Amino acid sequence: MRGEIITIGDELLSGRVMNLNGCYASSRLSAMGFEVGSIAAVGDDPIDIANVLKRAMARSDFVIVTGGLGTTEDDITTKTVSEVLKRPLILNQVILDNIKLFLEKRNLPWNDTLEKLALLPEGASLVDPRGRRCGFTVTEKGRPLFFLPGVPEEMQDMMDKCIIPHLMALASHKQYYATRTLKLFNVTEHHIGSDLKGFERTLPGLTVGYYPNFPEVHVVLTVRGDDQQEVQTILSRAEAGAMERIGANVIARDHETLESVVGRLLLEHKMTLALAESCTGGLIGHRITEVSGSSEYFERGFVVYSNRAKVEELNVDPRVLEEFGAVSGQTAEAMAEGVRRVSGASMGLSVTGIAGPTGATPGKPVGTVYIGLATEKGVVSGRNNFSGKRWQVKRLSAHTALDWIRRYFAGDPFFRGI
Amino acid sequence: MRGEIITIGDELLSGRVMNLNGCYASSRLSAMGFEVGSIAAVGDDPIDIANVLKRAMARSDFVIVTGGLGTTEDDITTKTVSEVLKRPLILNQVILDNIKLFLEKRNLPWNDTLEKLALLPEGASLVDPRGRRCGFTVTEKGRPLFFLPGVPEEMQDMMDKCIIPHLMALASHKQYYATRTLKLFNVTEHHIGSDLKGFERTLPGLTVGYYPNFPEVHVVLTVRGDDQQEVQTILSRAEAGAMERIGANVIARDHETLESVVGRLLLEHKMTLALAESCTGGLIGHRITEVSGSSEYFERGFVVYSNRAKVEELNVDPRVLEEFGAVSGQTAEAMAEGVRRVSGASMGLSVTGIAGPTGATPGKPVGTVYIGLATEKGVVSGRNNFSGKRWQVKRLSAHTALDWIRRYFAGDPFFRGI
Repeated sequence: MRGEIITIGDELLSGRVMNLNGCYASSRLSAMGFEVGSIAAVGDDPIDIANVLKRAMARSDFVIVTGGLGTTEDDITTKTVSEVLKRPLILNQVILDNIKLFLEKRNLPWNDTLEKLALLPEGASLVDPRGRRCGFTVTEKGRPLFFLPGVPEEMQDMMDKCIIPHLMALASHKQYYATRTLKLFNVTEHHIGSDLKGFERTLPGLTVGYYPNFPEVHVVLTVRGDDQQEVQTILSRAEAGAMERIGANVIARDHETLESVVGRLLLEHKMTLALAESCTGGLIGHRITEVSGSSEYFERGFVVYSNRAKVEELNVDPRVLEEFGAVSGQTAEAMAEGVRRVSGASMGLSVTGIAGPTGATPGKPVGTVYIGLATEKGVVSGRNNFSGKRWQVKRLSAHTALDWIRRYFAGDPFFRGI
Repeated sequence: MRGEIITIGDELLSGRVMNLNGCYASSRLSAMGFEVGSIAAVGDDPIDIANVLKRAMARSDFVIVTGGLGTTEDDITTKTVSEVLKRPLILNQVILDNIKLFLEKRNLPWNDTLEKLALLPEGASLVDPRGRRCGFTVTEKGRPLFFLPGVPEEMQDMMDKCIIPHLMALASHKQYYATRTLKLFNVTEHHIGSDLKGFERTLPGLTVGYYPNFPEVHVVLTVRGDDQQEVQTILSRAEAGAMERIGANVIARDHETLESVVGRLLLEHKMTLALAESCTGGLIGHRITEVSGSSEYFERGFVVYSNRAKVEELNVDPRVLEEFGAVSGQTAEAMAEGVRRVSGASMGLSVTGIAGPTGATPGKPVGTVYIGLATEKGVVSGRNNFSGKRWQVKRLSAHTALDWIRRYFAGDPFFRGI
């Protein structure tokens, strides 16, 4: 089955936002074995929308349209669809009731512009059967047309939970598929490419995709075939083969994140963590606490931006700061040890560096970042030379620091002795 | 002048890569006042390419095509263009000489597949006049068609240095445009829509767009016209009119962020900030330190996840925690006052709440978040009931807390007395 994707919104044509919806829909469809003939971005213009929709309907087995379903004046997708398909707009009581219920619960007043959300072309059904969100589908000349909201989170959720299963059920020839995502850090896409050269051809039905996702690169293994059991077997073999080639840089897989992996390891080893952040400004604590249940292993954190704070909160020896500077291995170690002692946690992690664009000193350019890790056995530190803008240096620093914890538990010899 | 962008490559349809070229070209064109009618992504298929090119030529003043100019078998753009325009391919001696020179310098052998790079449709000229890179332009029925390489860096460079100047020179009728982005918080898109209903029609050449950008909504005012001075005047009037209607929720404009606005206000008032974060886990410190130069006003931060940390680091009275709970206005106030005293900063900001999905207690569901703000004059606190997932509650909490600082300096009566 071959489909097309149409994304609607002036913001896509002005380059104000990336076309995330087009990218997400096409990647999900491709992974499930559907072909995507084209992705079009058009503005909030009824004639442009009508033309691109008519063309797509004439040559595709299905069409996915995103955007323009809201309440504002420039949201004209539903009205345009009604005109193109010559299906009058009809008030959908399920949606209307849900909007009213939503407002009641929050003690919000009714607003006449909201009625627009409940008007659907004749014969349309809701994509989300609970009817709690907009999004509808119409079957025209035997071909399904899907209309989804433009908000990426909502669109992605409906894509996964509603559109893909709907299309799978329609596909005449049952194909099975399974995927595994390996998340890599500290390696370039091009190195992964050369490590995995020819790998795709070693197993039947296997495709390998690379997706840079700063600061990670995700490698997605997809296996397709007619037999469900065999697809799973081949995927396991594919994963084993990929791990042999690139496993050293794999930090998480599928829905895991680096912070969820780190959290699991801390729990498993019954250790607690305290943080001393300088240039990351709280980003590591933020990442750690993205995981529900992190209070079980995250004791506390300090954002010690000033030298005074490093001394007062973490008992860093002022002579260390004076002799080696705030951005040094000695200071990183003193911070990691200090935060461990002060907090009573079993592990202390510290980061101190120059995020830029200002603050560089001779021998310590922007991107110079020291990380320290302390346990009851001892402390180690290391220097990193990151490149990029301020936000990139901060994210690379936080990612590298979190990865130190993962590597510590993985038995990396760098941490021998602590 | 209205143009279209066509991006070619199977990788765009499989979702393997983001359509960076489409986004870049559209943003540059829009910024220069050119209208973009659509962006299409098609695969390496000669029929699809021919169709999309013919359609674009029929209705646009110019067309920009990227991708498919390389030496591999799936690079078929040039050949397809030659067929669509019925212009035979002719060997371009400038390109051929440059390729040979390039190889000689690097001591690389000639390869027959390289000849493909030097074959251009009859009448084509090189986009880069030095002829060192592929990329060509053809004028068909008075309309320029540009063909650029798919490598983003090369494409972007040619876009800036060659295409934009070329189009500017062609534009017979100069159109000017100016935009202003207003960033709103604590208001739904649909309320903004009803507040701004009909506003667009009050001024000539004005268009208004809404872009949800969680947790903000951005309102973009764009004015187009023939006279540069008048365009600016109308934009000023549009901004004033919009501010009258929705100004209460505007937290930043254009390239400002909430954290850069907060930083500017702290600097202007010569105040320093210390943070006591619980459920936000460091996110507020991370946001504050996204701004270069934040060390001038950001003194330090504490992530006091445990009750023990709240007592030990911020001197929160254990009786307050016991009587009112960690998630309470009393604790928020004690944290804000405590962090101000401990750090010596002139302002203390605190957040304590339940990010979820676990941790709810009777009367305090997930999303219950207290914020506290202390100055030398006193302290205030307030309760918020956020809805959403853990990550959303964290972001709403951080945004609301930062916005408290903005509102404090704006003279919001809520903060009277501190």
